[in-house]
Amino acid sequence: MPIYHAPTKDMQFILHDVLKMSQSDIPGYEDLDRETTQAILEEAGKLSENVLAPLNPVGDAEGCTLENGVVRTPTGFKDAYDQMRAGGWIGLDCDPEYGGQGMPYLMNSAVGEMFVSSNMAFNMYQGLSHGAYNAIHTHGTDAQKATYLPQMVEGSWSGTMNLTEPHCGTDLGLIRTKAEPQDDGSYAITGQKIWISAGEHDLTDNIIHLVLAKIPGGPDGVKGISLFIVPKFLVNADGSLGARNALSCGGLEKKMGIHGNATCVMNYDGAKGFLIGEMHKGMRAMFTMMNEARLGVGLQGYAQGVVAYQNALGFAQERLQGRAVTGAEAPDKPADPIIVHPDVRRNLLHQKSFIEGARAFTFWGASLIDRAHRNSDAQAEGLISLLTPVLKGFLTDKGFETTVLAQQTLGGSGFTREWGLEQFVRDARITMIYEGTNGIQSLDLVGRKLGQDGGKHVMGFFEMVKTFLKENAGQDADFDAQFLDPLKAASKDLQAAGMYFMSEGMKKPNNALSGSYDFMHLFGHVCLGLMWARMGVAARAGLASGDGDAQFYETKLATGRYYMARQLPATALHLARIRTGADTVMELDAAQF
Amino acid sequence: MPIYHAPTKDMQFILHDVLKMSQSDIPGYEDLDRETTQAILEEAGKLSENVLAPLNPVGDAEGCTLENGVVRTPTGFKDAYDQMRAGGWIGLDCDPEYGGQGMPYLMNSAVGEMFVSSNMAFNMYQGLSHGAYNAIHTHGTDAQKATYLPQMVEGSWSGTMNLTEPHCGTDLGLIRTKAEPQDDGSYAITGQKIWISAGEHDLTDNIIHLVLAKIPGGPDGVKGISLFIVPKFLVNADGSLGARNALSCGGLEKKMGIHGNATCVMNYDGAKGFLIGEMHKGMRAMFTMMNEARLGVGLQGYAQGVVAYQNALGFAQERLQGRAVTGAEAPDKPADPIIVHPDVRRNLLHQKSFIEGARAFTFWGASLIDRAHRNSDAQAEGLISLLTPVLKGFLTDKGFETTVLAQQTLGGSGFTREWGLEQFVRDARITMIYEGTNGIQSLDLVGRKLGQDGGKHVMGFFEMVKTFLKENAGQDADFDAQFLDPLKAASKDLQAAGMYFMSEGMKKPNNALSGSYDFMHLFGHVCLGLMWARMGVAARAGLASGDGDAQFYETKLATGRYYMARQLPATALHLARIRTGADTVMELDAAQF
Repeated sequence: MPIYHAPTKDMQFILHDVLKMSQSDIPGYEDLDRETTQAILEEAGKLSENVLAPLNPVGDAEGCTLENGVVRTPTGFKDAYDQMRAGGWIGLDCDPEYGGQGMPYLMNSAVGEMFVSSNMAFNMYQGLSHGAYNAIHTHGTDAQKATYLPQMVEGSWSGTMNLTEPHCGTDLGLIRTKAEPQDDGSYAITGQKIWISAGEHDLTDNIIHLVLAKIPGGPDGVKGISLFIVPKFLVNADGSLGARNALSCGGLEKKMGIHGNATCVMNYDGAKGFLIGEMHKGMRAMFTMMNEARLGVGLQGYAQGVVAYQNALGFAQERLQGRAVTGAEAPDKPADPIIVHPDVRRNLLHQKSFIEGARAFTFWGASLIDRAHRNSDAQAEGLISLLTPVLKGFLTDKGFETTVLAQQTLGGSGFTREWGLEQFVRDARITMIYEGTNGIQSLDLVGRKLGQDGGKHVMGFFEMVKTFLKENAGQDADFDAQFLDPLKAASKDLQAAGMYFMSEGMKKPNNALSGSYDFMHLFGHVCLGLMWARMGVAARAGLASGDGDAQFYETKLATGRYYMARQLPATALHLARIRTGADTVMELDAAQF
Repeated sequence: MPIYHAPTKDMQFILHDVLKMSQSDIPGYEDLDRETTQAILEEAGKLSENVLAPLNPVGDAEGCTLENGVVRTPTGFKDAYDQMRAGGWIGLDCDPEYGGQGMPYLMNSAVGEMFVSSNMAFNMYQGLSHGAYNAIHTHGTDAQKATYLPQMVEGSWSGTMNLTEPHCGTDLGLIRTKAEPQDDGSYAITGQKIWISAGEHDLTDNIIHLVLAKIPGGPDGVKGISLFIVPKFLVNADGSLGARNALSCGGLEKKMGIHGNATCVMNYDGAKGFLIGEMHKGMRAMFTMMNEARLGVGLQGYAQGVVAYQNALGFAQERLQGRAVTGAEAPDKPADPIIVHPDVRRNLLHQKSFIEGARAFTFWGASLIDRAHRNSDAQAEGLISLLTPVLKGFLTDKGFETTVLAQQTLGGSGFTREWGLEQFVRDARITMIYEGTNGIQSLDLVGRKLGQDGGKHVMGFFEMVKTFLKENAGQDADFDAQFLDPLKAASKDLQAAGMYFMSEGMKKPNNALSGSYDFMHLFGHVCLGLMWARMGVAARAGLASGDGDAQFYETKLATGRYYMARQLPATALHLARIRTGADTVMELDAAQF
């Protein structure tokens, strides 16, 4: 049975030593001092360690079942969900007007990492609900908000997002689901949606589906898509539940992982739906929620890496095989623990330096979302919009890779169900696919975000790195050489790639698009390099203060040195690939492959 | 349901255009002209496409079951196994003296790729048996050979290898299984072995277990290990089956993949065993079989990539989403097939250029094994010994990566069971672990093979690359720039890494061991670069001859250019990592992680 330890101390380090949360000018941050966030994280940690983690293999083994249109979640999920509700976790960052706790999204992310690490499939039920809440909160009328939000925030109702159809996922312009206007102002929704996470289940009394559909006679393609609220049970004027709507779960997908979450085929057979937001502008409504949703998936990616690493580490510290080449380290035992071997350490440090950098990146991203929303800061909005595909694509690719590396640490045991590592690999795999495949993320990054507002945001990013380097250089030659110089070199590679796209992509767009994936990874490495440099500065300050746990800070510095020396140099490879342009990529005819 | 097409044409290209098989001085090769190998490959292809591939998802879904000590394989496996026997495939490269067909190992590898691509779990039954055959054939007495080999070659009996115990896999010096001498010259074997592939099943009448055990009073550690033949049913003097031996399957492992293969806990309770080879020299007997076994696992790795790629390609050519940025390519359809998008092509070419390079590398490796055995060529023996960890480690890491990339091509469909891609990922995953984890392979490479015979073999490798470059340079400036220059640069990186190990590893062994994994990958890339350069030369010759399929040769050259431009530059990153030495790897105490 795999273990999970809530990484409270590491999170506190990022919130307070790095992001200096309680000194921030973001409204709501000032109340969150070390003691307060410690208390919140400890509570979330207890729930994660004691309730969610033990359920994770149960959910994987049992999966969900569909009988007569009713989906049953695995044993224990309902009880855990009720504990989640009782703790007020579901509405943690929701609007207090509808019963939420009004916390920053940053706190939601920190707590969310724990929930995802301990049980990703379970946490998706409330995760999807949160997306639907956001859509209604942002685009709904006051009446719609009053009708749906209190129960969604409290958790007695949940929500879903219905986009994909059998013939289209990425290219939503092709959707066929119809919404026919009715005399009462509602719409009759007819069509089939697939891969609807939490589309049907037994955790809540009602499920509020948000469905993309086309109103006949509207424009073709994505410009003719509208968004509808389609509740499983219609809601009476007094708020009580009314008739069952004409929608049903037509099947459960058999999947590689996240078995505890019900992935549904949803059939809408003239179901009553209510337009939300403007007619034909449903895509725009979806896009406004996308930064947060994609950051959430990036978080899922590295969070699976976190729990996988913890289990790999435990194994490496206990499993006895062979002797250290420099002489026995546990001479009283038949062999040394495998963590003495350089290649085992390399593997563990690869995992550790990624997940800690990824956490800092995600928390920073969440704080940018808070700044964009709470301070109406357009610069923060532009920056997080640029970074969103990097957060999603890079953190899920590397998060999955981390689970595979962790599995490898266990050798044969990693391949068995018993140790749980293989579940983390299977669960993490979906994060590279859903909420826009990582290829689509790279296209969004290079094709849209890079040139947005005349390239202002990427230039802002470079400016920020430059300022950071200037502010921190020259104080310690070792620190400069180990942290700042590598960051500078990596950032230069990123700029060079951008320049290449500017000059060669202009001539031939495929020169840029052939390098989009490498660019996303290049950018991701620079972001993690920046995070490690910022963590390095914070750790040095912590050491200099004489307060706190000196060994903790030393470990941070050592882990950062690993990232800088052994992971960050990947930027040069990505740049080299980018510079080969479209030639070798576009040469073959489709039939020649 | 996934598809599989036997890649006969690609294999023929390697056998005849690249390796020039029938002109070789290796005994047995001279009979294998194009027509003969075509006939063999076509037959194996039919069996793979029509019988084995359709059974692959069945085996995955059903798995094996254990009831009252009897293991049942999935529906259809027994019938398929009988067809495999009837076709003479099991003894394809076995000694004619015992009923084998005496084919070179190279032909066995080509045919084996098809069997593994179409159904890896199924093919493991005969794969393990082949390993046991080799052990008995190499180390058994004439009487032992006469007793066991004919039935194993014919396939009515199978074999297994029993190494791992619950507390030790990598460090076999720790094994506890005891072999106590009996008055009749046999031994009583007592102990538990785990992860025994094909340890018990219903495909054959008898199972010949080869078991590592310690004879009490022998030397400690690996020097006190002996190897025993322990048949499930004892064999009477007349060759008929006698008493059931005191061994049993105590359980089946629940695994991430290869569900169709029974991974057994084997209990030996004073079972009658017969010493094979010299007392206490069982490890040496194991090692002599290891090159072939490890090459076989490397083959499994890329073979899963082959079938995954085929399915990804089919999807990419058919799935309609979005439009080419340069204008619609299928204007009559609602969208273009996704293969028009540069990032989808990048992904497909990454897969294609790897698997074709890997196939050439594996076939070349197999031909080195043939040369070592059939020509008693010490140089070939030394070279394949050096290359074995690279074949195993690099091809399985990249083979697994290929299955993941292929799965990604399918987006959400790749995550569902229905399309079969996720099974290839799960099945391929084991290849990085068994037959020595890839970390162990890298240790074998850097700690043992590199310096073997005073570094003679690695110097021979560099000499070979140099000669190849010299012989082929200066004929075509484009070819030089696209193929030979990148190979030269990559080979230089490999030499530089070797130099670093020589100078810095001498001072501190951990400087070398911290870079072993990167070195294995660096070496792998150079080998695939060499293969692509050799294939490039062969393709150019094919084009110049005016015979054959010009488009086929053009495609080879284009695929090679992709590898050279976009994969081979990884050598610089591996070298950069290696040069950082042990500092960041060994810095933390075990408790600090």
